[in-house]
Amino acid sequence: MVKLNHHYAKLSGGYLFQEVARKVAAFRDKHPEASLIDLIDLGIGDITSPLPPTIVQALESASREMGSRETFKGYPPSQGYLFLREAIVENDYKNLLISPDEVFISDGAKNDIANIQELFSIDNRIAVPNPTYPVYIDTNVMAGRTKLPLKNGGYGGVTYLACTEKNGFSPELPNRSCDLIYLCSPNNPTGTAMDRQTLQKWVNYARENKAIILFDGAYEAYIRSPDCPRSIYEIEGAHEVAIEFRSFSKTAGFTGLRCSYTIIPHALKITERGTIHSLHALWKRRHETKSNGVSYPVQKAAAAVYSKAGAHEVKKLIDSYLQGAMSLKNNLEKKQYKVVGGVDAPYLWLKAPGTLTSWQFFELLLEKAHIISTPGIGFGSAGEGYVRLSAFGHQLEEGALRLTRL
Amino acid sequence: MVKLNHHYAKLSGGYLFQEVARKVAAFRDKHPEASLIDLIDLGIGDITSPLPPTIVQALESASREMGSRETFKGYPPSQGYLFLREAIVENDYKNLLISPDEVFISDGAKNDIANIQELFSIDNRIAVPNPTYPVYIDTNVMAGRTKLPLKNGGYGGVTYLACTEKNGFSPELPNRSCDLIYLCSPNNPTGTAMDRQTLQKWVNYARENKAIILFDGAYEAYIRSPDCPRSIYEIEGAHEVAIEFRSFSKTAGFTGLRCSYTIIPHALKITERGTIHSLHALWKRRHETKSNGVSYPVQKAAAAVYSKAGAHEVKKLIDSYLQGAMSLKNNLEKKQYKVVGGVDAPYLWLKAPGTLTSWQFFELLLEKAHIISTPGIGFGSAGEGYVRLSAFGHQLEEGALRLTRL
Repeated sequence: MVKLNHHYAKLSGGYLFQEVARKVAAFRDKHPEASLIDLIDLGIGDITSPLPPTIVQALESASREMGSRETFKGYPPSQGYLFLREAIVENDYKNLLISPDEVFISDGAKNDIANIQELFSIDNRIAVPNPTYPVYIDTNVMAGRTKLPLKNGGYGGVTYLACTEKNGFSPELPNRSCDLIYLCSPNNPTGTAMDRQTLQKWVNYARENKAIILFDGAYEAYIRSPDCPRSIYEIEGAHEVAIEFRSFSKTAGFTGLRCSYTIIPHALKITERGTIHSLHALWKRRHETKSNGVSYPVQKAAAAVYSKAGAHEVKKLIDSYLQGAMSLKNNLEKKQYKVVGGVDAPYLWLKAPGTLTSWQFFELLLEKAHIISTPGIGFGSAGEGYVRLSAFGHQLEEGALRLTRL
Repeated sequence: MVKLNHHYAKLSGGYLFQEVARKVAAFRDKHPEASLIDLIDLGIGDITSPLPPTIVQALESASREMGSRETFKGYPPSQGYLFLREAIVENDYKNLLISPDEVFISDGAKNDIANIQELFSIDNRIAVPNPTYPVYIDTNVMAGRTKLPLKNGGYGGVTYLACTEKNGFSPELPNRSCDLIYLCSPNNPTGTAMDRQTLQKWVNYARENKAIILFDGAYEAYIRSPDCPRSIYEIEGAHEVAIEFRSFSKTAGFTGLRCSYTIIPHALKITERGTIHSLHALWKRRHETKSNGVSYPVQKAAAAVYSKAGAHEVKKLIDSYLQGAMSLKNNLEKKQYKVVGGVDAPYLWLKAPGTLTSWQFFELLLEKAHIISTPGIGFGSAGEGYVRLSAFGHQLEEGALRLTRL
């Protein structure tokens, strides 16, 4: 008789963004006039601007190549085409001692972040920022690396690193030993980036505790503060303790194309009972066994991000999102809203007025201002009393106006 | 201190196709004149003909849509675009009582086949054909669902279903209860398809033993024997016990594009301690949490496979591979080679002469006939003494000639 993976039953609620979508759909159902209401979506974690022309051209041209016998490509190399891995190293990791062989191309940072935990025993203790991207926790719950759900929405057996007003929304070192540490900079949802000193502290912690840092840099292209590194490998000693995840989704508008990459340095070794294991080798084996790589046209499109024209167009795209974030932030601060983020990230972390909970504030924004936001509690218990606003939305000025009139 | 998933250490050898590639590279290194030798690759499990024009056009046109604000698409729906799921149901599952909501689009049947085991407890006993596609076993080894490797290349705790000359290369019912049963029809590597009666026997077994059939139909489009079903759902009672995996890779030349789909009927329920669980709901939750779906241009290209022109072009493509397989088979049989497959599949399963092992025959073919094959032993112990030849290769006539001259 077949038996289920009972860890799935521990998962509380649905996946956050699907929950929000269901609530918005319910709002529309409740309001037959809803099609007349101009809903402003600041809940969106998705790109809204079209792909830049240089990238579209690369996609089209590679699509045509697939139609001719001379240039047709079958299965991609499981680790990704060398032309893309070389472009990544030359552009994103210049002087950071990363080789193309340490780059793994995949079809989404979400997938890699979800799958990386498979390399580790379920006996490891994970540490995650609170609030944070729900995928870190949910995938560990599914694997059985946590205990039962707690009343506050968290799970037993997990070390939560509270990011609050008090500590400037920066995760602090835990007072016990943890094995797998998820860090995200700039953090989703708070929009705050970690500075060099803080990251060095974490790398030192990992080295002392023989822990691994799983560093999510999906939003690195938005970092503007000179003191905030874009890559964990700017930090001394990181090559021996950190895996870095990056994506073309938010940096080049690829949410609808699906391309990302993960860096696992050869220096990342784990010694168990006298045997030295390479995490790179384990991930490579997983990659070869469980995936057939990323489509050729999409990898060509990703490589075009590093061409002179592509890089220029992509920078313009990110600048425009950041300008929107800054302007939204300024408008809200003028009206005494408490808000962080929006400087090194496309996200703003907005405190609910008075004693409103996240979902109450979410409902208020939806009902009264016709603004869609993302409830902070969906990212963890320390997100209670906050919502995330996204600069990927349209009509940011109008959104700010409506918020200040609430 | 971080601890590894020690199950990875049980994996024997590398992933088969990477091993073959390494041996071929070594052959070329050993022969400085190798560039002059006309190697014929019949080991290839990859499409070699270019994408049909209708599909390329769909890909190009969708790529252009991504460049304009009005038609740009961000994150795809996690289960896939409805236009594609509807086309699949209307064309591939007509009268088979499958709804679009039961279709999950993903970027590779390999990925889904590798990931599906996550839904189940590690305490389940798996049954796999022998020989078969290595991914079934390897992913269960990684998850800890098997015991240690055996001397014959298999793993303890697994029920192997021998497919031999004696039983017509058709897996027979095990004499003990198994929980997760992998079936592949037409089977990779033997190229033999299961008939209706055999499949009904398996569905009955699954119903009696409360087991789940994981049915790999990646090569269904090659089936020509009228008595061999293309879908497990042609069999009565299958909706309650079977998950089906399909792919555009081999049926429409998508190995370089990456698109596949998995069917999980709502009728597939598991009752545990009085609670009824839906496998559809579990997979949906996994899909939402660990993936962001398949790129829009690729899904448009897949939908074009079902257009009138696309379907015609794709049929021509498959017919041409099948013609190659048939001709290769006829030529080999004329020379008293023992060979099966090649009728309902692009693969031929060729018996080595005398007492040669798979790898010995592989080496002989490489050294003496300059033909690349795939050693049968790489697919399981019952594959010893065979090699797989693929009709995806070029120069099949010349290949047959060289084989008959050996």
